[in-house]
This record gives sequence, C-alpha cells and structure tokens, in this order.
Amino acid sequence: MRALPEPVQNLIDAFSRLPGIGPKTASRLTFFLLRAPEETSQSLSEALIGIKQRTGLCEVCFNITRSDTPICEICASDQRDKSLLCVVEEPLDVLAIEKTGGYNGLYHVLHGVLSPIEGIGAEDLKIKELYKRVQENEFTEIILATNPSMEGDATAMYLHENLAKVGVRVTRLALGLPVGGDLEYADQNTLLRALAGRRNLD
Amino acid sequence: MRALPEPVQNLIDAFSRLPGIGPKTASRLTFFLLRAPEETSQSLSEALIGIKQRTGLCEVCFNITRSDTPICEICASDQRDKSLLCVVEEPLDVLAIEKTGGYNGLYHVLHGVLSPIEGIGAEDLKIKELYKRVQENEFTEIILATNPSMEGDATAMYLHENLAKVGVRVTRLALGLPVGGDLEYADQNTLLRALAGRRNLD
Repeated sequence: MRALPEPVQNLIDAFSRLPGIGPKTASRLTFFLLRAPEETSQSLSEALIGIKQRTGLCEVCFNITRSDTPICEICASDQRDKSLLCVVEEPLDVLAIEKTGGYNGLYHVLHGVLSPIEGIGAEDLKIKELYKRVQENEFTEIILATNPSMEGDATAMYLHENLAKVGVRVTRLALGLPVGGDLEYADQNTLLRALAGRRNLD
Repeated sequence: MRALPEPVQNLIDAFSRLPGIGPKTASRLTFFLLRAPEETSQSLSEALIGIKQRTGLCEVCFNITRSDTPICEICASDQRDKSLLCVVEEPLDVLAIEKTGGYNGLYHVLHGVLSPIEGIGAEDLKIKELYKRVQENEFTEIILATNPSMEGDATAMYLHENLAKVGVRVTRLALGLPVGGDLEYADQNTLLRALAGRRNLD
C-alpha cells in the first residue's frame, strides 16, 4: 500500500535530488506546499524555468548574467575600477565579495578548481580566458580569491606561476582568525596562519 | 550594484519562502540548479505544478489523494480493517504511521488542531465530518493520534468528550521514552509519563 499519491511522491523525489535536502525535509516542503496557496508553488515553478531559460554566462568574466545581456552588469558598469581583477571559483563567490561592499574591481569566474583526483584540469576551467584577459587589459593587481582549501590553494599557486610571467602584481586573500571568532576554538592551521600573517598596529 | 541577475534573484526569493530555507540555503540551491542539467529544474518545476493540479482531499478521510480518484487508496482498499479509526492532525502523520507497518485500520485527517490563540476552532477542522463518520460506521476503536503537544492533547481531550457519548472505545498513543533514547537525557515530563505508563513484563 503506497500511502502517497503519485504527484506528491514526485515532488518529494524532485526535492530530494537537491543538495542538503533529505527525504524528511523533502516531505516537509511538499506538505507545506500542499497547504499553501497555489501561487506559492506556481511562482517557484516559474522561477525554476526562468533560471535556465533566462540566464547565461557573461562573455567577459563568466559570471551569471541575464541571457538578453551578453555582458554582466559589473563588467558593463563604468563605476568599477577596471585595473583590479578578482579571480573566484564560482558565481556564488562573486556574490559573497559584492556583499562585503569592500571591493570595486572586476571579477573572473573560473567555474571550478584544478582537481587531479576528479580529473579537472586547466582546460576544464576558464583559465585560458583569464590569461587572454590579463594580456589584453592593463590590470595593476590580480587577486586570487579561490577558496583556502587544498584545491583552491593549488589552483592559486598554478595561476600565480603563469601570471607572474606577465609581470602583474598577484595577491591572495589573507588567512587568519575569523572576525568574532575564538582563539581557543580556532584550528591549528588557522592559528598558525594568523601568527605568520600578524600585522603591526599603528 | 545588484550582483545577481533578476531570474537568479527570483528563484532565491521563491526558495526562501519555503519553511526552514533561509537566504543562504536558497542561494546554494539556486546555484546548484544553475550548474545542474536543465532536466533537474524542469522536473522540479513540473512536479510543483502537479502537486496542486493533480491532488485533492479524499472525500472520506480528508487525506491527500489524486484529483482523479475522489476516495484515497487506503479508504478504497478492502485489505484494511474498517473497524479501526486513527485520527491525526496532518496528512504527513498518516505517512509516518503507514511507514511503521503496525497499523492496518482507517484514518481521519483533521487538518490542524484546536488552538484558541490562533483562532482555530472545531469548525475550522474536519471534526463535524469525524462525528458523522463515527455515527454512520461501526468502529470498535478510535485512536486519537494528535501530537503529544499542548494543542494536540487539548484536541484529543475535546474529541474524547464528544466521542465518549457515542459509546465507542477511544484510545490515545502511549507516551514514554523513545526507542534507542537515553534515560539520562529524557526530559522530566517524558520520564514522568514513562513511569506512569509502566507495563508488566510477562
């Protein structure tokens, strides 16, 4: 005896395919939508269609952009400092940096990191496009903002080696204690980096 | 400067409206779908439409059923014990009890609990329908399986008072320690109920 009608089971299955959503959360969401007004599921459904049909990658920085504008808002803006380039792994990282309000340069989205284990090499990422951009533009600084993980570090090292030849200044985000964090609970590596990167108070 | 194109922001907003999904999870899901093949968002979108258009409530027990069958699989089945009736708050509770495999009777879904604070009275729930069903059928036992919460208990008490007049046996689910639980970590009330409901070993 199946306790659930097929359309309900379908939606639970579809939700379960999303990352971080297990079968329990999937049924909770499904039963919430069953009770909610039709507009709630309707608007989610339409937004899902829009995400694929109405977005594309910016031709310059490879960030997500609307499919009717080949160049994203950031690249097209004349308010941005075009001498700074920040290299990130994913479009979500652009969002994170934009939210800080502390950066006004351009971006370059690699769409991944080098990972020999997963068979991801330089040709699978937007690295060739990065070199081309660096050669064709006069950047004063390239900030390598890949994640401070094994793969992120390796990718930054690899990019640094190749970008150094062009003679541009290449930097990496600071490693250290997170703001509001607790020394006692910081892991050894973070604390080591925080020590090594200590700064003069002036 | 908005860092996100409008279709992306739309989907983040739509996900954020779901319970238990905050803005961070919503963007994680959205960027997952941006990377995933189109079928993933497509099938979720279709399932969302189906949930409202292709489901309805069973005319007998008010559980969720397919809109092309006015009576749900459980009510229509001749394999179920039609002398037992289990009263639950939500369709999700039917699912939970069905999964145990320990119950083979019928259900009645109230679609909520009495809650004077939220202004939910007997007329907002499927209580009139429950009385009618109990009068028209010869149940030997009514199991009040509302949640062991303040509102669930109050609803069970209220139903018990009225059902007792009909002369049918009314029971409530046992309260006690959860299986695999730890006496040390059980809250006071649960332990009190477990003591009060202790059973002979035979």
